Amino acid sequence: MELLEEIESYRPAVESLVREALARGQAYEMLASLCATAPHRLSGSPGAAAAVAWGQRAMAAAGLENVRLQPCLVPTWVRGEVENLTVLEPPELAGRRLPILALGGSVATPADGLEAELVEITSWDQLDALGPDGLAGKIAFFNRPMDPALLSYGAAYGGAVDQRGRGASESARHGGVAALVRSMTTRIDDFPHTGAMRYADDVPQVPAAAVSTRGAEQLAATLRAGQSVRVRLELDCRTLPDSPSANVVGEIVGRERPDEVVLVGGHLDCWDVGQGASDDGGGCCQAIEALRLMKALGLQPRRTVRAVLFMNEENGSRGARAYREAEAAAGALGGHVLAIESDAGPFTPRAFTTDANDEALAVLQQIGALLRETGLQEVREGGGGADIDGLREHGVIVMGYSPDGQRYFDLHHSGRDTLDQVSPREIHLGAACIAAMAYVVADLEETLPRNVPEPADSSRAGRP
Amino acid sequence: MELLEEIESYRPAVESLVREALARGQAYEMLASLCATAPHRLSGSPGAAAAVAWGQRAMAAAGLENVRLQPCLVPTWVRGEVENLTVLEPPELAGRRLPILALGGSVATPADGLEAELVEITSWDQLDALGPDGLAGKIAFFNRPMDPALLSYGAAYGGAVDQRGRGASESARHGGVAALVRSMTTRIDDFPHTGAMRYADDVPQVPAAAVSTRGAEQLAATLRAGQSVRVRLELDCRTLPDSPSANVVGEIVGRERPDEVVLVGGHLDCWDVGQGASDDGGGCCQAIEALRLMKALGLQPRRTVRAVLFMNEENGSRGARAYREAEAAAGALGGHVLAIESDAGPFTPRAFTTDANDEALAVLQQIGALLRETGLQEVREGGGGADIDGLREHGVIVMGYSPDGQRYFDLHHSGRDTLDQVSPREIHLGAACIAAMAYVVADLEETLPRNVPEPADSSRAGRP
Repeated sequence: MELLEEIESYRPAVESLVREALARGQAYEMLASLCATAPHRLSGSPGAAAAVAWGQRAMAAAGLENVRLQPCLVPTWVRGEVENLTVLEPPELAGRRLPILALGGSVATPADGLEAELVEITSWDQLDALGPDGLAGKIAFFNRPMDPALLSYGAAYGGAVDQRGRGASESARHGGVAALVRSMTTRIDDFPHTGAMRYADDVPQVPAAAVSTRGAEQLAATLRAGQSVRVRLELDCRTLPDSPSANVVGEIVGRERPDEVVLVGGHLDCWDVGQGASDDGGGCCQAIEALRLMKALGLQPRRTVRAVLFMNEENGSRGARAYREAEAAAGALGGHVLAIESDAGPFTPRAFTTDANDEALAVLQQIGALLRETGLQEVREGGGGADIDGLREHGVIVMGYSPDGQRYFDLHHSGRDTLDQVSPREIHLGAACIAAMAYVVADLEETLPRNVPEPADSSRAGRP
Repeated sequence: MELLEEIESYRPAVESLVREALARGQAYEMLASLCATAPHRLSGSPGAAAAVAWGQRAMAAAGLENVRLQPCLVPTWVRGEVENLTVLEPPELAGRRLPILALGGSVATPADGLEAELVEITSWDQLDALGPDGLAGKIAFFNRPMDPALLSYGAAYGGAVDQRGRGASESARHGGVAALVRSMTTRIDDFPHTGAMRYADDVPQVPAAAVSTRGAEQLAATLRAGQSVRVRLELDCRTLPDSPSANVVGEIVGRERPDEVVLVGGHLDCWDVGQGASDDGGGCCQAIEALRLMKALGLQPRRTVRAVLFMNEENGSRGARAYREAEAAAGALGGHVLAIESDAGPFTPRAFTTDANDEALAVLQQIGALLRETGLQEVREGGGGADIDGLREHGVIVMGYSPDGQRYFDLHHSGRDTLDQVSPREIHLGAACIAAMAYVVADLEETLPRNVPEPADSSRAGRP
């Protein structure tokens, strides 16, 4: 059978998956259950352990086979009880508290806090120009906003998140005693957004926190009016020894080629604020749901479809590494045909992104065209997701579910990331798209041609 | 200049409108102000009056010209204080209250309520088969669900809403003493959804209420298990004499052809639950914002662009009629080039629908293509909106902003329709699309060719 004709022959199955998801989808109820059971799922926490147990139960309830844990050791950072930013000067703002969240990985302040003046930094060049002692005894206030005018909210995030990741060490490199970072959202409100940061090896470790965008605007307005701003920062977060945790894995075993695998995944860990509903409880539930939908319709593809709930995407990617190592040790990575991740929100379909070689891309685009009526516009070049992009080293084609993202960073890593911001029809349509893509790739007569393995840091792995 | 070339020349202006909306859009803050000022804006209510005053202030603040009211008399229905559905039998459910909302326009029950048995009705044929006395002394329980498997949520609504509109009189026609209607949403939850109903002239008027979908499922399960269900229904809603109200109108007067008008609108009234944020506070704010964006960029088109906040879309369309009558009396309808309504939610761009003739459609599609990067996929055949479709009789081309609607009917006419379900970036992108479409049509050298006037009830007015 000609390939295009073969793909077209899957149209009834694809339409059935979409109808089933809309009429009897369970991803939303699954997510409600996860958010109720373990709203805070930061790696190493009791919530993460509860989420792992939840994941096993949810996969068993969905009728998946070979439900199992894949152990990993995870960084274990705890927020602690104290998290305050209090303005001391100017006098008219004295005593005001601004909403903050410690950044994940930050060290604590001294027990009685740390008092210092803020210096607003809006570019790395400006910081460099201050010289090695330019921030001596001061707090760097990184306040370069995400560019709200960019149509891609993700691009706006990508253009600003370096401040969160590097800010603490860059502050310390110039004598700074802490870093305060504007929250990563274009929305102006009172919700601080946390997220990972990392310390450079060659400078002292200083505390770092995110301040809400409205708080940042207030501080900046005061500074730009020529007033000095002095604050007290109190954080008692700390890093404990690594803890045991696990990925959760379940399958529909392929009826003809069980050793060839199409992976669908999301990450089970999330930050310890909100409920991690969009980041990434939704992606986990879509992965399980994708397989459940196939089972509900009696669809057992030629190849194995595997759902993976990765641990520790947010602050270490240890689950992703454990998966790669375990599969490599079993000699199983050569059988990985495609890995799909949903970690951009359980929102309405727009696109899949992929690093597939040209021949495979044409196939994936044909499958995507079967989903046009769901709102899916294209399958285009791009990455897969933090948990699966490491598989590119092994020639595995990766793919990301890329839904409409215009509200994603309003919620991301903040108290707003709750179930009530998720729509049942939207999460179900996403699950249907993932199910359809995974099912057709897993069932095609010919195996999708693999990519040429390339180093993980290549930006266009798999393409000539 | 060739037309395609001329439209392409607007690309920089269109891109500026989009950037301005994302970077400094005010529609969301406008909507927050409206929802805080007048969350309940049912025609004839104090909230609606407050909203009219708000609309004038908002237009003035946005710098619009000729801000004025266009008076109309509106139906004035009030919900009253009592609204209960209490199960009396079977004994194991006795005393349970289910969430209901009286339908707009319903009469009250007797003061001490109305006690009767429920009969589930899932098709008009089934009802007809019961004969003229088949519901004597009973309550018709209209429980035909919206079809959740349809990709178009609007089509699912259209396939079920006849029960809400006609249910009470069809119940009375068969001897029924009231109607209880399953809420118009596919989501299974505890939020009843209200909406308009109308009485036929030839049967007694009996009370009508919507029950939440979860309540409906519980009642149906009991009935289908063979148990009879007896309830007490208490409503003290009533209809008062018509009250004076108004549309709110403001403009940017055209620099060359001020008598040719491009209208952008939404409706200012809303139901008396939630905040009418998506239906249709958002559309009103997008209309004002569309003009404000033009002003912010110094764009004064050749023709007049007019924002209209229509009163009474929900239960009478008196504002729409008042607009048509006033403009007809002034001989101004022949100058109406295009009317755009946003009443499908302030969500992420997907499409515009229009009844434009082929020549005009080609122009509108070219303009739509300038908005591709916002997510707008197409300009396709369809209607405009309840407030503007009456203009089709006069040859005016109508157009509806048709955003992604997968969560619209989760919110519609219910307590869920609140500001926190609206995303700033989504409402701003919609405003930008409306602004761009209105601006280019209002500024083109050649006036868009009018439709052939056709009767209002034609389904394809303006097309051969």
